Formats: sequence, structure tokens, C-alpha cells
Amino acid sequence: MPDKFADLRHGLAVANRILAHEGVIDAFGHVSVRHPDDPGRYFLSRSRSPELVEPGDILEFDLDSQPVAPPIVQLYAERVIHGEIYKARPDVVAVCHHHAAAVMPFCISGDPIVPVFHLGAAMGALAPFWDSREEFGDTNLLVVKPAEGASLARALGRHSIVLMRRHGATVVGLSLRELVFRAIYSCDNARYLSEAKRLGNFSPLTPGEIEMAQAIYQLPNAQSRAWEYWETRLAKRGGMPARLTEVAAAPHLSVPRLRGRVREGAARPAKTAAKKIAARKPVRPKGGKRK
Amino acid sequence: MPDKFADLRHGLAVANRILAHEGVIDAFGHVSVRHPDDPGRYFLSRSRSPELVEPGDILEFDLDSQPVAPPIVQLYAERVIHGEIYKARPDVVAVCHHHAAAVMPFCISGDPIVPVFHLGAAMGALAPFWDSREEFGDTNLLVVKPAEGASLARALGRHSIVLMRRHGATVVGLSLRELVFRAIYSCDNARYLSEAKRLGNFSPLTPGEIEMAQAIYQLPNAQSRAWEYWETRLAKRGGMPARLTEVAAAPHLSVPRLRGRVREGAARPAKTAAKKIAARKPVRPKGGKRK
Amino acid sequence: MPDKFADLRHGLAVANRILAHEGVIDAFGHVSVRHPDDPGRYFLSRSRSPELVEPGDILEFDLDSQPVAPPIVQLYAERVIHGEIYKARPDVVAVCHHHAAAVMPFCISGDPIVPVFHLGAAMGALAPFWDSREEFGDTNLLVVKPAEGASLARALGRHSIVLMRRHGATVVGLSLRELVFRAIYSCDNARYLSEAKRLGNFSPLTPGEIEMAQAIYQLPNAQSRAWEYWETRLAKRGGMPARLTEVAAAPHLSVPRLRGRVREGAARPAKTAAKKIAARKPVRPKGGKRK
Amino acid sequence: MPDKFADLRHGLAVANRILAHEGVIDAFGHVSVRHPDDPGRYFLSRSRSPELVEPGDILEFDLDSQPVAPPIVQLYAERVIHGEIYKARPDVVAVCHHHAAAVMPFCISGDPIVPVFHLGAAMGALAPFWDSREEFGDTNLLVVKPAEGASLARALGRHSIVLMRRHGATVVGLSLRELVFRAIYSCDNARYLSEAKRLGNFSPLTPGEIEMAQAIYQLPNAQSRAWEYWETRLAKRGGMPARLTEVAAAPHLSVPRLRGRVREGAARPAKTAAKKIAARKPVRPKGGKRK
Repeated sequence: MPDKFADLRHGLAVANRILAHEGVIDAFGHVSVRHPDDPGRYFLSRSRSPELVEPGDILEFDLDSQPVAPPIVQLYAERVIHGEIYKARPDVVAVCHHHAAAVMPFCISGDPIVPVFHLGAAMGALAPFWDSREEFGDTNLLVVKPAEGASLARALGRHSIVLMRRHGATVVGLSLRELVFRAIYSCDNARYLSEAKRLGNFSPLTPGEIEMAQAIYQLPNAQSRAWEYWETRLAKRGGMPARLTEVAAAPHLSVPRLRGRVREGAARPAKTAAKKIAARKPVRPKGGKRK
Repeated sequence: MPDKFADLRHGLAVANRILAHEGVIDAFGHVSVRHPDDPGRYFLSRSRSPELVEPGDILEFDLDSQPVAPPIVQLYAERVIHGEIYKARPDVVAVCHHHAAAVMPFCISGDPIVPVFHLGAAMGALAPFWDSREEFGDTNLLVVKPAEGASLARALGRHSIVLMRRHGATVVGLSLRELVFRAIYSCDNARYLSEAKRLGNFSPLTPGEIEMAQAIYQLPNAQSRAWEYWETRLAKRGGMPARLTEVAAAPHLSVPRLRGRVREGAARPAKTAAKKIAARKPVRPKGGKRK
Repeated sequence: MPDKFADLRHGLAVANRILAHEGVIDAFGHVSVRHPDDPGRYFLSRSRSPELVEPGDILEFDLDSQPVAPPIVQLYAERVIHGEIYKARPDVVAVCHHHAAAVMPFCISGDPIVPVFHLGAAMGALAPFWDSREEFGDTNLLVVKPAEGASLARALGRHSIVLMRRHGATVVGLSLRELVFRAIYSCDNARYLSEAKRLGNFSPLTPGEIEMAQAIYQLPNAQSRAWEYWETRLAKRGGMPARLTEVAAAPHLSVPRLRGRVREGAARPAKTAAKKIAARKPVRPKGGKRK
Repeated sequence: MPDKFADLRHGLAVANRILAHEGVIDAFGHVSVRHPDDPGRYFLSRSRSPELVEPGDILEFDLDSQPVAPPIVQLYAERVIHGEIYKARPDVVAVCHHHAAAVMPFCISGDPIVPVFHLGAAMGALAPFWDSREEFGDTNLLVVKPAEGASLARALGRHSIVLMRRHGATVVGLSLRELVFRAIYSCDNARYLSEAKRLGNFSPLTPGEIEMAQAIYQLPNAQSRAWEYWETRLAKRGGMPARLTEVAAAPHLSVPRLRGRVREGAARPAKTAAKKIAARKPVRPKGGKRK
């Protein structure tokens, strides 16, 4: 089964796992990338913790965040975050929504995050603060309705990261690698800022410094160097996803394990698994509160 | 030896190990689940660090926390925490007592823990604070007498988590998975709250937000997703317990290693081990101060 | 070569490695145990990071901290800490000197450490603070002269742990397991205290609580349970020392690697190594500033 | 291909990896050593994350930071830090530039770092603070021009570590081992200082203590002990670099992986790789902003 997007799916799975391995995302959070040929579509995993995402989990969505093919798996409830941002920001190629420990205290206290070191400039000069309560009143804080996603996208505006009150953050990039770089170094920036505030006085980078330092991570060399580092660390811990071609004969590997039990023995024969998939009732997304 | 409760024992061992692996429990702490067919009984490991619990360590207790079969092993001294809560709260299906680093500063300072982010709502609106000294004066702070357990259960009331002064916390769930979810995310919540307080102002979720956000983790999809994540992380580190059926021929695996020495060679033949078990004098619990 | 103390040497090596693995000691620090038959002697490793100590590294010293057999290896410069405490405290069976990250801020600020949770009571009611400058003026802060060790032992008095100004802490125990338990939980206590102080008010355990809670870790069950936990964690990470009998044919394994290079290939034949040992000039300790 | 500097290259690769493994450097940062026979030259890796540096990545530079042989690989943009310090400080044998989490809050707040415990004295009495803005105005904060490197070297003066405003730190040593020791323990010192400041009062070591305690890490025994510890920890995690002789038949191992993809299969035959190297256009450094 030749897949035109095999490399893209693999790269997106790697990005998911790098962000989990470097402490940006945990059980929840998600990462997407825009379709390279069709700006009206994007790729995102089925509902699964980013650390576990396999290339075979990656599905295609339109900008209304509806899956292009009828899904047989659960979908992220918050995928409108991705679709609405891709609509509002034609320049954006990749999106990550996370609840990193580094940013949560800022999301809770409302304290602003500003860039305080050269690599922290990757976040840009400013992280807008979005409070869902202003427009939508009390909610469960998840972003599941298109209107909520659109509101978040408006708050993001032309910036690169938006903080979400008592919820987390959403980061965008002009490429998948830029996104990963920005997500990781904006977390480092938040950690250092939090410590520096307690030590004493501090002031952010100047506008001139921000502009010039922002260009650092856009140098191909800086991005390659950092990506090689994160990818090697992930690989050393046995965390790299399998290539889709390697599991072509075992499609059940991408089937959700609804029992939540880690298979300890040999994988079941593909035929049995395929039968089970066929027998499973398709789940059609209705914009509900699944997450 | 077919065991009707083999899956339950395995699941409880996995829950013990997940909570250890995610930093909720260390050498001490314990996790139980109510008997699925008999609400007057519950399952709990023999006295052993949760990270090491095997399915074969799981014993059955009545609600007075007496073992149903005469034990040949040491028991947790604090098991009345479980029995008294199961008595007072017929809705509760699982209980965890822990001393997580995330909550200890709150247990020591008396500062309240309140939900400050969407997943933190899993703790509910409020964590009552129980001070054993009010009713029992100076003790060793352990909860070993039925009256102490009953007092703690009263303090818990209809809530989901109770803080224990200079000791730790006890968390309950309507299922084992809900318990694990709540225990982990209430620790994250405490960490973020502690940091947010130092950054500046903060306020908890509104009552409406708490109610709606509490429903998130009760969605089967959210629980499956998180459970798959925690279980896979545990499995990757080689932390999954063996299936009981796999050790059926080696019952000595569940015998306490009183010498405290890790067996480095091959396991001794089951026959020898079985003889040793037979020769060992049963230890009958008397509600003493063993922990 | 039958060794009457093979178990003791192995146990002491395990205690060294547990304390390193649990974050109490790093490159520096050391752990000793008194001779079981001769109270005028004690066992301590040659100068080596505790995480690397092998049973074959353990040497015998008199209470003046002179090695019983002429050593061919480097010795800890600070071994007088051990000898002088064993002289002053006939009840003490094991001693650990460390610079744990958890206690250093207290050693630097002079802020007192008091027990604030049940397991923290293992440290006792009070940790005296020893300032070498009061008696000895400016030094390099190491405790290398017998008079310095004796002064530290006087400061320790009847207590279980003594803080050393801008240096670290020294902990004692009535057994090796008690020592390990106390060293680990007094570090946890310091961490929680530090956090609780920042959250708000706090008060230590009452004298009655301390006395009763101190008895917890002296229960054989509590110690076995914790020891099994720490040892299993160490073993899972491949950290257990080899049994001396297993390396009897390879005595060079305990020879210091003065080149500081990890042997990646097969060990050299014992004969060659033995010749090298024979050819090496013995180093006789003179109480100098080696550490 | 006999290499007179095989041991030096391997040692420098190990130093790079130890500093990464102990948390001093991450994706960025670099470590160099002066040429043992020619004080007008130094060795430094090609542009690559220190954790990944192989002996074959180490190149030779003159003190103007120009590579001695035309490079076919990317170079660190900030290598002038090394060259200018080697020019200004004939005593210096090794240099490390890093952005360790432990020092960043001080680099951001401008709070001074002073030695507060015996091993912390390795940093010396004082860490000067260099603010690139004073001489160069707004920049991207990287040190890429010779004039910037020379300014930093002037700020360093006769000291052992210089803090760089909103950027990081640069540490020097009279040997590679001294450098590693100083870099690691000055980070520990910063962490303890930060915590101690929040607990309450603190004061640095006295000048006499600093002078005497500084001599500790210069004792061969202390350095060997610490180096053996760090190297063994690295080796246990599978982090040691291969010996160059072992990869002599596979020169492509030192070729930059511009695709940033971890090779999962077998290495390609050396012949093919060699052809690719030959076909690649040499990149001549021009002092640009590559990092």
C-alpha cells in the first residue's frame, strides 16, 4: 500500500513523541500539520496520547475539523483548535496544543510570559491570554465547538503562542520543526522567567533583541542541530515510531486498544484483527465532548 | 488453579505500579478495590511497596479490614483506611492512600488545595483537611485503629480526596481508573497551584466550571486514553506485573522476601518454596502498628 | 578465598548504591558500618563514588581511621568523620556523610530543619548545626583532622543527624537499614519543609508525635518493606553490585582505574592485573587532604 | 589511519557528553580544548549537540577560530568565544559555553552568583556579568564576531566563569577535567544559592574558605573520583562515544546528517558514503550567524 504521505505521517508521529519526551505534552495534548498540497486540509492523530502516536494513527481532516474518511476510531474532541487556526492563519503549517507544567502556573495566575533569553525569543514578543469565560461563560474549559476554536484563533492573532486561562497553551509554526523548536524553548523560557522573578528584578529582551534573536531558530543549521538532538534522545530511549511500511502487514497496530491493556505477547494475526475492525461500529464525530 | 478474579488482581497490581511510576506513591502508600460481587469485601495487597505488587500479593478483606483467609504474610497496618471508607461510602469502588511530594507541603502548611485547571477539577471543588490530633491527640500519625479510619471517613464525607495533617492524602474513585486519574491529576493540580501562588494572584475554577470539567475524566474516551498512556509508559520501563497464570507453577513468587535481598539467579523450584510456605507460622493480624 | 564478611561487604555496597540512586549522595559522600564483632573497627570503601562501590572496595579501619591493612588504594580524606563518631557514640552502627541537594539550602542559610511529617520523624526532634569556623576558623570545609571529626561528633551529640555549615550533613543509625531509611526520609522532610515554608505557616510535629512516629521505621516490617523497594529499584536499573565470589577470579576489578577510563572491552586477565597491583607503590595515608 | 590525537578527540567527546548527561548543556552549547603541542590552536566539534559528538566530529581551529583544514561540515557560529578566550588567557586549556537551567535565572535577573558551599568554590570568588548591550547595543545575543568574543574575554578577566546577560555562561579550566568539574559544581552552587536565598539569610564562603576550598578539586584524587563517577553514569546509559579506531572503516559516521533523520537500519557501506562526502560542496566559514 504505497502512501504518498508516509514521510509526513512518520514525521508528525516523531514530532508528537519528541514533544512528549521533552515534557511539553503528557497524556493529553495534540500536534497537527497542514496538508502540503491542499491548504484546506490538515493531518492529526486519532485520539491517543502523543507519546504513543504511530504513523498509522494519523488521519486527514478538512478545516471544519471533519475527518475526510469516515473514521472507525475515536477523535480528539478539541481538534477545532487546529482547524480554526488553519482557517484564520494561512501562513501556519503546524499547531500544537499542550498543558505543559512550565506554562500552567502562568495560565492559572494570569501572569504574562515574556521572552527573557535568546532562545526564548522563539515565542515572539508576546503571548496573548485567552479567557474562554469572557465569551462563553462557564464551560468545561475544553475547546470543542467551532465558535470556541475561532475565538481562540482570534486571540492568537498574528502571534506564535496563546495562553488559555486555567487550561494550557496553543503554539503555531511555519513548519513542523519550527513548531517543535518554539514549543520546547517557550517552555524553557517560562521556567527561567518563573525562577528569575523570584530571585529579583528582571526585564524582557528589548524589541530589537527579540526581532534579531527570533531569526536564530529559523536558520536551517540551528533547527537541524536541535532536531537531531531531540530525535536521537527519543531513539535512545526506544521511543521512535515504526515506519508504516514496516507494519504494512499488521494494520491492527493502529487500531485503538479499547481494553487499555498492553499486549505483552505476540501480536494477533492481522486477519483476526481485520475482522474485528470490520465488525466494529463506525464512530461518527458530532462535535461532542470527547477529548 | 482458575481464579475468577485474575483480571481484577492484575488490574489492581497495574494500578499500584502506575501510581508508583507516575510519582504518586513511593515505598509506602496503598491502593484497594471493592469486591465486584460482594460490597462487604475489598481487595488489597499484602504489605509491600506498590511498585512491586504482583497479582499474587492481592488478598481479600472484610470491611472490618480482617483478611478473609488466614494470612501467612504481613499486612498493611493502615488498611482500616480502606475498610472504613468502604463502609461509609457505598458508592466508592477504589481507594488510594499516598504521601505524594506534590501534596505534602499543603498537608504540612494547612494551605487549602483547590482546583485550578480543567483536569485538576478531577479532585472536586474541595479537599477537606483532617487533623488526627483533634480527636485522638498525639499519635504516630498512622491510621491503624478502626476509630481512626472511621474519623477519616467522616472527614472525607461526600468529597473525593481528603488531606491528612502532616501525613498525606486519601483519594477515592467510583472505579479503579477514575481513582488513578484523580490521584494523578490532583497531584498535578497541587504542583501548579503551588507555583501559581508564588507568581501572583490566582483564583480557583468557578463552581460551574468545576462541575462541567469534572465530567471530562468520566468520559470513557478520556479515561482509556490516559490509562493507555500510563500503562504503556510503565510497560516501556519493564514495570508491568506478570500475569498470575504465568506464575501459577511458581507460587513462591508471592511469598515475602524477608531477607530483603533481590533474587539474582533463577527462582528456586516451586516444591522447595511451597514447603517453606507450609512450614512458616501464620501471622494473624491484631490491628497493631505494623505498616 | 572465603570471606567471613562477604555479606557485610555486599550489604554496605548496596547501601552505598541505594543512597546514590535515591539522590542522597552524588560523586562525593560516603557510608560506613561498624565491625559486627569488634566495636573498635569499621568498614568503609576506598575513595570512590558511592554509586560505583563494589564489595571488593570495602576496607577495614580502626577508630583512628587508619586502615588495618596497608592500602594499595586511595582513601577518603574525610574518614575521620566515621572514626570519631564511632568513638563518641558506642550505640551507632552505621554512618553516612552526604551533600544532598535537599539539605544544602538549609546548610547554607542556617535555617533549621525540623520534622514535619510522620516519616520525617526519622530524623529525630532536632538537627544540630555545626559550623567548623567557630573552632577552626577558615578551612577548606572538609573534615580531615581527627580534632575536626571529634568536634563534629560533639555537635552531633545524642542526635541522629548533624548539619554542617556550607558543606552537607552527617547521619547515623543503629543499623545500616535504619541509616538508609533515616538518610532518605530526612531528605524528603527537608524538601517538604522548604516548600511548606513558602506556602505559608507551618509547625513541626509535637514532641509526643515525634517520639511515637520515630518508632515507625524501627518496626522490622517497615524497614523490610522500604529496603525491598529501594533495592528492587536499584536492581531494575542494573545498579546492584556483583557478589564478591563472582569476581574472586578477577581481583583487579577493585583496583582503582587511575586513567579514569571505562573499560569497554573484556576485562584483562587477572594475572596481568595482579602483576600491576604488585608493582604499584603502596600509598600510606597520612591524614592529608585527599578526599 | 593513525591519529596522534585520537585520545584527545575521544576525551573531548566524552567531556561533551558528560556535560550533556549531567544537565549542563542541552541541544546547544559547546566544549573545546587547547592543542597540547601548539598553543595557537584548539579542538572543537563541528556544529552538533554535545550529547551526540563523536571523536570524528572534532576539528582543529586557529585562535581566529578559522578551521585549519577546509571543512565539509557546518561549524558553530559562536566558536569565537573559544578562540578569543584562548588568545586572552594563555593559562586556559579548556572552555565550555552553556545555557544551563541552573544559571539562567541569574543571567536573566542579574542577581550575582557567589560560592556558597565547599565544592561550589570551584567557581572562584566571583562570576563577572557581561552584558553585550553595553558595547554592541541590540544583537541576537549570540557571540559570533571576533570583537564580541574579545569583549567577553575581557569581562571574564582572570576569573573562571562569566555570566552572559539573558544568554548563559562561559566557563574555563586549566585542564579538561577541571573544566568539567567546575561547570558541574558551579551549576549545583547556583541551584543551592537560589533555594537558600528563598529560605532566608545566607552569606558566601569567606575569602579564606574560597581559596582553600578551591584547592579541593585540583587534587588528582578528587578529580579522578568525580570523573570516574560521571563517566560510569554516562556509560551505564549507553552514552559513551565510539573509539575512532572502531569506526575507521566507516568515516561517514562523522558526516552531518542533514536530513536530521536517525538511521534505523544498518549503516550504508563506507564506499558510498565516501563518494557522497567527496561530492559534497565544501562550506567555508565566513563568520556568519550560523550557530
